[in-house]
Amino acid sequence: MLKVEHIGIAVKSLSTSIPLFEKLLNTPCYKTEEVASEGVTTAFFRQGESKIELLEAARDDSPIARFIEKKGEGMHHIAFEVTDIYAEMERLQREGFVLINPEPKPGADNKLVCFLHPQSTNGILIELTQERQPL
Amino acid sequence: MLKVEHIGIAVKSLSTSIPLFEKLLNTPCYKTEEVASEGVTTAFFRQGESKIELLEAARDDSPIARFIEKKGEGMHHIAFEVTDIYAEMERLQREGFVLINPEPKPGADNKLVCFLHPQSTNGILIELTQERQPL
Repeated sequence: MLKVEHIGIAVKSLSTSIPLFEKLLNTPCYKTEEVASEGVTTAFFRQGESKIELLEAARDDSPIARFIEKKGEGMHHIAFEVTDIYAEMERLQREGFVLINPEPKPGADNKLVCFLHPQSTNGILIELTQERQPL
Repeated sequence: MLKVEHIGIAVKSLSTSIPLFEKLLNTPCYKTEEVASEGVTTAFFRQGESKIELLEAARDDSPIARFIEKKGEGMHHIAFEVTDIYAEMERLQREGFVLINPEPKPGADNKLVCFLHPQSTNGILIELTQERQPL
């Protein structure tokens, strides 16, 4: 893995949390993006080579809504950038980690992503992420 | 803030979690260090310009033991590197954030650190960290 691509944070309301994180991180939110397939709206902040990604549920059955109901607002996942997501998924599966999606899928920010099951990773939801190639 | 200096992860046992994270991150643990004042033993892995820090309770009344009892193993805090911790503490306090320690204190990895109260930061324990200057 190359670096921490982003840290995902579950929030109830982007309209409350975007100004809060702008003050906290002392940097503006540079993008919001809806990821309809995941039922979330995201907001991004740069921190060095990494990003902070806020996640608000876009509908009641969104995984983010369920997460907040169970655990409250807070850190939701860590995303690591990889150069070859297919090779990395194969390596991790061989090492005994459990992939939530067996094929990479489109994520926010023009990425291909794969999630690892927290049961195999000490309770942490891990995302692998690779920049999608332009056609 | 300059970058994500590290992500802190609470674990029950370093002897189980160090080999797990070595496989997950595909990089060796390069250092372990006890921080007696916090009642924790830490283990570090490099990921780009950031680190992953595993935290094991060194005694029963350690904040990490209480965290795991309440929430289970998982993401514990995010540490951001700053250039001037005193100026950043003053700025954040002025913005309405609550400092847990009003003076910077020594942390792992030769740092001066200050924690912000999760109640003021959307449920996330935030650490400010600055490299200590050699005498």
